[in-house]
Amino acid sequence: MSLVVVGSVAYDGVETPHGKIDRMLGGAATYIALAAAYFTSVKVVAVVGDDFAAEDVSLLSSRGIDLDGLERVAGKTFFWAGVYSADMNERTTLRTDLNVFADFNPKLPPSYRSDPYLFLGNIQPALQQGVRSQMDRLQLTGGDTMNYWINGSRDELLETLRQWDFLLINDSEARMLSGEHNLRRAAAKIQAMGPRTLVIKRGEYGAVLFHRDHHFIAPGYLLEEVFDPTGAGDSFAGGFIGYLAGQGLTPSNGHLDIAALRRAVIYGSVMGSFCCEKFGVDRFRTLTREEIEARYREFEDCTEF
Amino acid sequence: MSLVVVGSVAYDGVETPHGKIDRMLGGAATYIALAAAYFTSVKVVAVVGDDFAAEDVSLLSSRGIDLDGLERVAGKTFFWAGVYSADMNERTTLRTDLNVFADFNPKLPPSYRSDPYLFLGNIQPALQQGVRSQMDRLQLTGGDTMNYWINGSRDELLETLRQWDFLLINDSEARMLSGEHNLRRAAAKIQAMGPRTLVIKRGEYGAVLFHRDHHFIAPGYLLEEVFDPTGAGDSFAGGFIGYLAGQGLTPSNGHLDIAALRRAVIYGSVMGSFCCEKFGVDRFRTLTREEIEARYREFEDCTEF
Repeated sequence: MSLVVVGSVAYDGVETPHGKIDRMLGGAATYIALAAAYFTSVKVVAVVGDDFAAEDVSLLSSRGIDLDGLERVAGKTFFWAGVYSADMNERTTLRTDLNVFADFNPKLPPSYRSDPYLFLGNIQPALQQGVRSQMDRLQLTGGDTMNYWINGSRDELLETLRQWDFLLINDSEARMLSGEHNLRRAAAKIQAMGPRTLVIKRGEYGAVLFHRDHHFIAPGYLLEEVFDPTGAGDSFAGGFIGYLAGQGLTPSNGHLDIAALRRAVIYGSVMGSFCCEKFGVDRFRTLTREEIEARYREFEDCTEF
Repeated sequence: MSLVVVGSVAYDGVETPHGKIDRMLGGAATYIALAAAYFTSVKVVAVVGDDFAAEDVSLLSSRGIDLDGLERVAGKTFFWAGVYSADMNERTTLRTDLNVFADFNPKLPPSYRSDPYLFLGNIQPALQQGVRSQMDRLQLTGGDTMNYWINGSRDELLETLRQWDFLLINDSEARMLSGEHNLRRAAAKIQAMGPRTLVIKRGEYGAVLFHRDHHFIAPGYLLEEVFDPTGAGDSFAGGFIGYLAGQGLTPSNGHLDIAALRRAVIYGSVMGSFCCEKFGVDRFRTLTREEIEARYREFEDCTEF
C-alpha cells in the first residue's frame, strides 16, 4: 500500500575521513523515500528550489517515487554542510541554509490524500499536524522529530505526538523528550504521550523497539568500513515504514504485531547499514532487493543463539 | 569441570547516584568466581591481607569456591575507590592502594594444577604467563587485560596472548590493542595475535563475539535501574567461562563451537546484568539459578525475530 513521506529534500556538503563532497543530493525525505521504495510505492511531499537538478529528479522517479507533491519554487534548495570526526561518531554542522525550506508549508496533491501510510519526517510539529489533517483514510501515522523541536516547541510537539501510532527517535532525543536517562523508563513515558510503538535508534549500536509492553533489541550491523553515516537514520526509517506499508500491516487489520514490527526494525537496520557504505545516497543507486534480503539473513545469523 | 580463576580479591569504596559504600567486598577474581560458581566448580588464586573479613571468606566458601589458592599475608587487602557520573557511563578512580597485591606472585596449590579451565584476570601479563606454566592439563585458557598493560607492557602482553584460546576485553581496549577503530578489523588483528575467540564488551550495549570467521552480536539487557555497574564486566567473564567449564566444552572435544560460545556470551550478559542490580556483589547473595535461566529466556525473547 502507498506511503506518503513528508520532509526535506536538500543538497548536502559532507566531509568524512574518506573524502569530501561539496554538494550532493540529501535531505531526510530523500533517504526515507529511496529506502522505502524497495518495499512499497512512495509519494513525496517536499519543496525544492529552481536549482534542483534534473538528474536528481530522475533518480527518484526511476524508483517509482511519486513526485506530484514535490513543490518547486523560485530560490535555492535547502543546503546543509557538515564534517565528521575521525571516528565518525560526532559531526559538526558547518552550514545550514534553509533557503526555500524556510517557507515550506506542505500541501498534499489530491492523489495523496486517501493513502493509508504516512511518515512525517523531522519538520516543525505544527506542519506535521497540518499534513496529517489533510489525509482522510490513514491507517498508520508516525514520524521523527529532533532536539530543536523537543526543546523549543514542546507543547506543539506533544499535541502532535498524541495522534501518532509510532515515533522513531535517537537515544539522546528520547532522553530529552522524557526527562529519563534509563531507556526503558524513557520509553514508557514517551509511549504514554501517544505513540504505542517507539523505536529508539542508537547509532552504531542498533535500535530498541518498544511496542505496548514488549521490547526488542536489534543490533547495529558491523560494517567493515563506515564511509559516510549521513542519512543512515533516515534510511532506517525508510526501511522500517517501507516494510510495514509493503506488507499492508496496520493496527486495524490486526497484523501490526510485535513479530511484524521486529522484522520492520531489522529491515530498517539493513537499510541504515547500506546507506553508510558510500557517500550520500550513492549506495542506493546500485543496491538490489536481493542484497537487502541477504543482509537480513546476515542479521539473523549474527544474532541467533 | 573445574575452573581456576586468578586475579584480585579486594575491598572497594563505591559511590553511585543511588548511594555510597565506603568498603565492600570486590576485586575481579571475586566477581568472576561468584558468577562462574553458578555453573561449575571454581578455584581461586589471589592474595589478601590480614584484614580480610571472615564473612567474606564465608560468602565465597558458601558457593563451593575452593580457597586453597587464596594466600593471606601480613598487611592490607587491595583497596580501590571510585565514583560514578550521574548517568553511570563514566567513573573516576579516587584511590588505588595496591597494598599486599603489589607483591602478588601467584602460586598454585598442587590440587589446582591439573584442572582444564583457566581464567586469567587482569594482572601483569608476566604473572598470567607464570600461572599458565604451572598448569599441565589445560584445555581452555583465556582472560582479560587492560589499557595499563596494553600501553605499558605491550611486548610482554603479546607474548602472553599468543598462548590464549580466548580474550575478553572492552571496545576501547580492543581499539587500543589493535590500533583499529573499526570493530571487525580490530577483531581480525587481535585474533591474529593468538586468541581465536575474542569477546569485545561494549558496556550497556552488550558484547560482540568473534570466533574464527564468525561473529555474534549480543545485546545488553535493558535494566530498569542500574544500581552499581562495578564488577559487571567481571561477572560477564564469570558467566561466560563458567558456562563453558560447566558444560565441559573444549576445543579438543570438538564441542567448543560457535553455538556454544553464543550461549556462553548470553550467560555472560545475564550475569553482568544481575551484577548491576545491587551494590557490589550483593545481588549474588540471593541470586538463584532459576532467575538466571529466566533471564536467559528474556534475552531470547527480546532478540528473536
